[in-house]
Amino acid sequence: MSKQIYLDYAAATPLDPRVLKVMEPYFTKDFYNPSASYLAARGVRQKLGEARADIARCLGTKPAEIIFTSGATEANNLAIQGVMNTFPGKELLVSAIEHESILAPAGLFKSKQIKVSPSGIVDLADLKKKISDDTVLISVMMVNNEIGTIQPLREMAATIKEVLKSRQKFGNTLPLYLHSDGAQAGNYFELKTSRLGVDLLTINGVKIYGPKQSGALFIRAGVKLKPLILGGSQEFGMRSGTENLAGAVGLASALGLAQSNREAEARRVNTLKDFFASGIEKNIPGAILNMSSNYQAPHIVSVTFPGVDNERLMMQLDEAGIICAVGSACSATNNEPSHVLAAIGLNEERARSTLRFSLGRQTNRSQIKKTIRILTQLIS
Amino acid sequence: MSKQIYLDYAAATPLDPRVLKVMEPYFTKDFYNPSASYLAARGVRQKLGEARADIARCLGTKPAEIIFTSGATEANNLAIQGVMNTFPGKELLVSAIEHESILAPAGLFKSKQIKVSPSGIVDLADLKKKISDDTVLISVMMVNNEIGTIQPLREMAATIKEVLKSRQKFGNTLPLYLHSDGAQAGNYFELKTSRLGVDLLTINGVKIYGPKQSGALFIRAGVKLKPLILGGSQEFGMRSGTENLAGAVGLASALGLAQSNREAEARRVNTLKDFFASGIEKNIPGAILNMSSNYQAPHIVSVTFPGVDNERLMMQLDEAGIICAVGSACSATNNEPSHVLAAIGLNEERARSTLRFSLGRQTNRSQIKKTIRILTQLIS
Repeated sequence: MSKQIYLDYAAATPLDPRVLKVMEPYFTKDFYNPSASYLAARGVRQKLGEARADIARCLGTKPAEIIFTSGATEANNLAIQGVMNTFPGKELLVSAIEHESILAPAGLFKSKQIKVSPSGIVDLADLKKKISDDTVLISVMMVNNEIGTIQPLREMAATIKEVLKSRQKFGNTLPLYLHSDGAQAGNYFELKTSRLGVDLLTINGVKIYGPKQSGALFIRAGVKLKPLILGGSQEFGMRSGTENLAGAVGLASALGLAQSNREAEARRVNTLKDFFASGIEKNIPGAILNMSSNYQAPHIVSVTFPGVDNERLMMQLDEAGIICAVGSACSATNNEPSHVLAAIGLNEERARSTLRFSLGRQTNRSQIKKTIRILTQLIS
Repeated sequence: MSKQIYLDYAAATPLDPRVLKVMEPYFTKDFYNPSASYLAARGVRQKLGEARADIARCLGTKPAEIIFTSGATEANNLAIQGVMNTFPGKELLVSAIEHESILAPAGLFKSKQIKVSPSGIVDLADLKKKISDDTVLISVMMVNNEIGTIQPLREMAATIKEVLKSRQKFGNTLPLYLHSDGAQAGNYFELKTSRLGVDLLTINGVKIYGPKQSGALFIRAGVKLKPLILGGSQEFGMRSGTENLAGAVGLASALGLAQSNREAEARRVNTLKDFFASGIEKNIPGAILNMSSNYQAPHIVSVTFPGVDNERLMMQLDEAGIICAVGSACSATNNEPSHVLAAIGLNEERARSTLRFSLGRQTNRSQIKKTIRILTQLIS
């Protein structure tokens, strides 16, 4: 399928062959249970520690602040359920455009949604208004998975600092944590947690050319949360279960590769995105780009083709060898219109005329050219 | 390390190269997100369905009753927390020798422990006595991971039937589910859920020459439980997160291989176990085998060497190229004496003189002979 044009990198990325190579020793050879005490197991345990340290380095944190999980969904659940179960009855704020793996666990607790602007940016005034004396956690993603908008985490962190100062004055000792789902950010953005201002950060492998069901949660030292999966007390008691060495070293390797090349790759992909966006605007009158002019990730292009059925167009593109998405993969199986597109003001009809194209490592100019040409043919 | 004698198969097994081969296409090639709607993704989704059907066939269940998880610990947590969160305030019974991934989540709820006999078999009279009108779940493992005893699940299922009949008479509509952790059973025992009489059954990959952090939970249709990890509603809404195709097909393949050869392999390993046990009895006076004469899995030999420090002996064996375990791997990192050995009546001193040897596919007679010889030398 060398002629296939894959434009759904936001749903899944192929495992980098270099990453697979790093994983291979842990399948049939160094298969030992890292919790055992003999020499071979201790060797494996050391490798697990090195993978943890590698991830910590990418995030500028201590290794003990990194918890391996089976992907971003579990990490998001651990963050939300873990904190909220520790502070029963307290409140949680999430943006209206979070991923289902945030919205669904948030629904188990007292939670409110923060509005976003028509370009998909969290409304800081609304955030401030909704923080109450009982708010203990705010969860806002770094980069939206459907429209690619980048969220103002640092500004939120500053707001939180003010709130905590004022709480201190009034003797309210409740913490206020900032969690961010960084699932879509690993390839293009810096992940230093102190610069982001986050207390909890979700990392995953499947979007950064790493293994599926590999992920991690950064938990800043001192943050209080209860584990979701209990048992043998692996991962500092925060996530039990025999450790998946191949997954851990794969995640560390994938994150290292992505982060070391992120600036150049962000520029390259961003140029392709701009070329794509302007090509659509030029060739397909009426097409609407759902993006922010200033706060936009390089790899996601959401386009509304008014009057066009997105399912049908997606399938026509598929037949022509171009793979793109009708909303996020996680919500593709239900037939609901996207909550993200609704939150930025698209009505159901418009939402059902919207496609997401997401770019990645194999994407090049000629693929984008061809995509524009075929889109133009199909729509006109 | 061809001379290494690995006798810790109960902690981890090497991935079967045939299984790895089945997994390989899903790393770099068929990497698509199975929830997406284009043709390539639908192909991957179909493979996921086939893996699910393969596992269902091994268990004699419907595919929709199989939920993929990231291993046995998660499956056990889903069973315990999932059921108990559905019936708040109700009660749970677990055997005193369950794995930590049962005992720890059980501790979150109203729970009681069922006694076991000195040979490690669940006391059915104690079970009957402890079932109350509020008991909604009983969790007893198929095969114990430290001493290898096999539990009388069918008898428990019969007791449960009687209880449910009597509840019906008194208008008590509370269900009473039987869950079993089958983590140590996959290589040697039949897993047909209707014969076992279970409503929920945990399967895992790491003990059956399958991939790490692969597992499944059988949930009989009609059993009510809440998911633990929420989000994109994968796995029939019971376990969200982008599916791990390599893990799922790997688990299915490993389970199929293990189950298709289980009778012959059980006989072979059982003969080795008997040879090992009688060799210890013959050569090491005072050594005590912690096993049941009638209900014993073929692969686990727990031995107490009174007066010998087990950590030290384990390390001496390690130096001699023989790998065995001080209790279970999951509790190896804390320094507590084994709760399993305590439950069968060993005091702390005896528990700290006990080693677990667990046999597997590469184990042969000459390895066992050498192990007996070296053990004899080290202890005399």
